[in-house]
Amino acid sequence: MPLAEFDLIARYFSDCGHPRGDVALGIGDDCALLRVPGGKQLVVGVDTLVEAIHFPPDTAPGDLGYKSLAVNLSDLAAMGAQPAWATLALTLPAVDPDWVRGFAGGFCELAAASGVRLVGGDTTRGPRAVSVQVLGLVDPGGGLRRSGAAPGDRIYVTGTLGDAGLALKALHESRWSHHLGPELRRRLDRPTPRVAEGIALGRLASAAIDISDGLAADLGHLLSASGVGAVIDLERVPLGPQMRRYLAETGDYALPLTAGDDYELCFSVPSPRVPQVEVLGTQFSCGFTLIGEAEALPGLRLRRHDGSLLILDRAGYQHFVDS
Amino acid sequence: MPLAEFDLIARYFSDCGHPRGDVALGIGDDCALLRVPGGKQLVVGVDTLVEAIHFPPDTAPGDLGYKSLAVNLSDLAAMGAQPAWATLALTLPAVDPDWVRGFAGGFCELAAASGVRLVGGDTTRGPRAVSVQVLGLVDPGGGLRRSGAAPGDRIYVTGTLGDAGLALKALHESRWSHHLGPELRRRLDRPTPRVAEGIALGRLASAAIDISDGLAADLGHLLSASGVGAVIDLERVPLGPQMRRYLAETGDYALPLTAGDDYELCFSVPSPRVPQVEVLGTQFSCGFTLIGEAEALPGLRLRRHDGSLLILDRAGYQHFVDS
Repeated sequence: MPLAEFDLIARYFSDCGHPRGDVALGIGDDCALLRVPGGKQLVVGVDTLVEAIHFPPDTAPGDLGYKSLAVNLSDLAAMGAQPAWATLALTLPAVDPDWVRGFAGGFCELAAASGVRLVGGDTTRGPRAVSVQVLGLVDPGGGLRRSGAAPGDRIYVTGTLGDAGLALKALHESRWSHHLGPELRRRLDRPTPRVAEGIALGRLASAAIDISDGLAADLGHLLSASGVGAVIDLERVPLGPQMRRYLAETGDYALPLTAGDDYELCFSVPSPRVPQVEVLGTQFSCGFTLIGEAEALPGLRLRRHDGSLLILDRAGYQHFVDS
Repeated sequence: MPLAEFDLIARYFSDCGHPRGDVALGIGDDCALLRVPGGKQLVVGVDTLVEAIHFPPDTAPGDLGYKSLAVNLSDLAAMGAQPAWATLALTLPAVDPDWVRGFAGGFCELAAASGVRLVGGDTTRGPRAVSVQVLGLVDPGGGLRRSGAAPGDRIYVTGTLGDAGLALKALHESRWSHHLGPELRRRLDRPTPRVAEGIALGRLASAAIDISDGLAADLGHLLSASGVGAVIDLERVPLGPQMRRYLAETGDYALPLTAGDDYELCFSVPSPRVPQVEVLGTQFSCGFTLIGEAEALPGLRLRRHDGSLLILDRAGYQHFVDS
């Protein structure tokens, strides 16, 4: 086995991300040594992307590198944590220096922009897959959880929903390809983790989750963890211009509600803090949109202005019933 | 995609390992929240095992679970670190509850025995692979590195070398199968990470590495990182009873020197500390064996008592030359 070639790969990552004074020992030894600032809690997340499951084989390596870190930073964002360090387990079928250079370019670009230092890695031979572990910091007692929502809390989301799903649809189904511009494509390939938004919400939101599997599923997780339900006003769900056009053509609400890969945040806010959150939202270009309210009655109800409820069945089809 | 089934998998790991009071939030949210004790440095490592590359498809799931954590704890041991937490990224081609239960059994058994709590996980669909990240603690200024060896330092190893390699050979080549007893098999399937030994050596050794790719390769890494060379007395390399018999039959020194998967420690000791290290070695059942000495002249020289040098070529063949 040409292990030396795999060592060579490691060199593309030897100076990856933002230099940090708290890294006592970085890549190249058995482990990394890190100084955790006193009075902070450590936040740890891990996410894996597997070829043909999470990304098509022809994904540009730079996009994959970017996205593999972005989805992990999104997990930190949902905790209200400040990103600090990451490790990377990269499995590749063969050594392709151009591919690795491209991957490292995307990964390290986002790491540098996010204040993250890559401190450890493992490159192995096998079917292509990327597993990233992120380490972040949060004040003790801080740290947004999924479980803090209470009846009466308002439900918000950042940004717009369904863009990544629409981009994927437009890539795979030629009759929708007219929707696919570079901006929509970027929403799929290089999602923006809402890190600063999550940190700012740390003391204001009662619960948060990032939307990786679609609003309906992920808000469902938040509600279950909190032991509450919610009603969502369908017409309030924030949509980008292409998604609005697509919806006008199709009436397919299911897409923005069930498509994954958006990596926006969904969070709940106790009503006394709503004015603060509304002001805060104006400071971020993605914006915060109020979409509904938590209730004691379990379950997620997706309501139109005419009072009818949208029902999503397991196959992703929709129908409406009177409430 | 039956994501619910993958959620089910996560339940096998929901109470995995040693309960720890410093876990503020464990498995089940976007990330884990951990309290790092004041005055400690964080030690982070990551290692991936891929099916057909690092383990055969018919590996018992419990053995794979055990070994996937063991190889990571071995990295912590080589840093002199106390294990604390782990995350697990598990990629599986399909949901097989029996397989997952077996894997979790082996993984969580070693976690509990090592004081480690599993705090995060990600199960995905794809070709079978296991990526584990371990987090440990060490006193500031502690932490064994690869780079601290100086000329004159004595070179030691723990345990015996080549057992896992001999077990693998006996499994694959029927003419060696008479060597394969349960003890040798366990050396391959359930290696013992030398955690307590590494911690005890933290203040005594000048450099350390764990032997995952064979003594020659891994000691070579330690020497390169330290900017020194070494001479090893071949007859001093500690061998188990089966390996001694195999060597008597074959004269194949290359096996114990190049076979991977032993997960013993190789470390250097400044000569003034040799007496302390010798006493310490008697406290561990694996023992410490003095095998050679670091020198200013770069490179690794493997010397027999008759003065001849063993040369290992890239294909793993050996020959001897006069020194």
